[in-house]
Amino acid sequence: MSTDMSKVKALTFDVFGTVVDWRTSVILEIESTLTAANIEGIDAPAIADDWRAGYPRVMNEVREGARPWAPLDTLHRAILDEDLVPKYGLQPLAEEQRANLNRAWHRLDPWPDAVEGLTRLKQRYILATLSNGNVALLVNMARYAKLPWDAVLSAELFGHFKTDPEVYLGAARLLGLQPHEVMMAATHAGDLRAAAANGLRTAYIPRPLEWGPDRPQPGKREDDAFDVEAEDFVDLAEALRAR
Amino acid sequence: MSTDMSKVKALTFDVFGTVVDWRTSVILEIESTLTAANIEGIDAPAIADDWRAGYPRVMNEVREGARPWAPLDTLHRAILDEDLVPKYGLQPLAEEQRANLNRAWHRLDPWPDAVEGLTRLKQRYILATLSNGNVALLVNMARYAKLPWDAVLSAELFGHFKTDPEVYLGAARLLGLQPHEVMMAATHAGDLRAAAANGLRTAYIPRPLEWGPDRPQPGKREDDAFDVEAEDFVDLAEALRAR
Repeated sequence: MSTDMSKVKALTFDVFGTVVDWRTSVILEIESTLTAANIEGIDAPAIADDWRAGYPRVMNEVREGARPWAPLDTLHRAILDEDLVPKYGLQPLAEEQRANLNRAWHRLDPWPDAVEGLTRLKQRYILATLSNGNVALLVNMARYAKLPWDAVLSAELFGHFKTDPEVYLGAARLLGLQPHEVMMAATHAGDLRAAAANGLRTAYIPRPLEWGPDRPQPGKREDDAFDVEAEDFVDLAEALRAR
Repeated sequence: MSTDMSKVKALTFDVFGTVVDWRTSVILEIESTLTAANIEGIDAPAIADDWRAGYPRVMNEVREGARPWAPLDTLHRAILDEDLVPKYGLQPLAEEQRANLNRAWHRLDPWPDAVEGLTRLKQRYILATLSNGNVALLVNMARYAKLPWDAVLSAELFGHFKTDPEVYLGAARLLGLQPHEVMMAATHAGDLRAAAANGLRTAYIPRPLEWGPDRPQPGKREDDAFDVEAEDFVDLAEALRAR
């Protein structure tokens, strides 16, 4: 390990996929919503996957100026109304049901190792989210899932989504740290490449079940070289404590 | 009590004076710094009081454009270097000693009721700071004093200091709430008047020892009408649970 790792004072975490199992949680909420609305014969996992897949697309529309800046809650709702409702025949869902379903993204269960790993890491490091989720979403999720963040940092604070540099550099600035004193932890290699390009340290944690048991996670490239790789957050705590 | 109180979902807290006893903590750090630097015969309480008194002054310089925007850490350091060093003959303090002393504001002890009261309030309400302190200062203080915030919100996120409206309205926006769903808790009546003027609910908590045993806290005016008044945070938890 590089001696530079000893300078790390804060860990910033990608959230969707890295900390929480968005897919299982959203599928369950879709199923209960459809049942309550007497909508039958719908493939809830397909809706969940389409919902998640729509998110980089609308984020890019914001980045390119085709959509005004909006918190992720608003973008999730736009995907639901514009894409999922017509595609899956969800027109019977009333406004209140759609609003509640959209907030499923505030109620995501953590991966089984997440709370224990974060609790251990918190003994040594400042822990912050660094997510494209908006602040309210991340705060509600932390209360729901008992995630022990020291700070909830979000793309919303910078008016830029990851992987724009403003997000990584803004997080270091708000934490009062230099970029090399911050380690980005994520399961998405592109997030970590952008963090590294902006001077942050990087921790890669594969989450092979992010897209379900039948669809492999894209994973990292052979030429990716992250500062730490760990199996899960408990393993990450071990790896960082070892230094 | 007004029925409107039942809509409150989040409490935002002033920090210096309301949550932490800045004066006792800063006096102790000044004393240990001066002792280590062999500076004798200095009135540490007077330095602490002058330091704190300088803060609204430099904040107003920022508000009026005479100083560029800066996080509170930078303003605290400016008061130390520009005012306190010449006034109290602190020139012998080396750079490292000054930097460490400036970070005394990150290591402030809470009032005795604060952690218990916040822990109880957190069962029912989202808890956030809403302080002119910068994010790093508030994060470090929360770790030091074990303050169980759900979110660290700061003037720094809005580029405006309290009592500018942007701070109160920005906090509600980031929490995904309407202003009347947020209650500002503070020991400074001016902070609460500004919160109320922007549609927030208000909780007043006197801290008669904020300025020490010999100097009464300015307190509230006879015509001030806040939504809740409580003796301390445990009493605030009782008052809000009663509803």
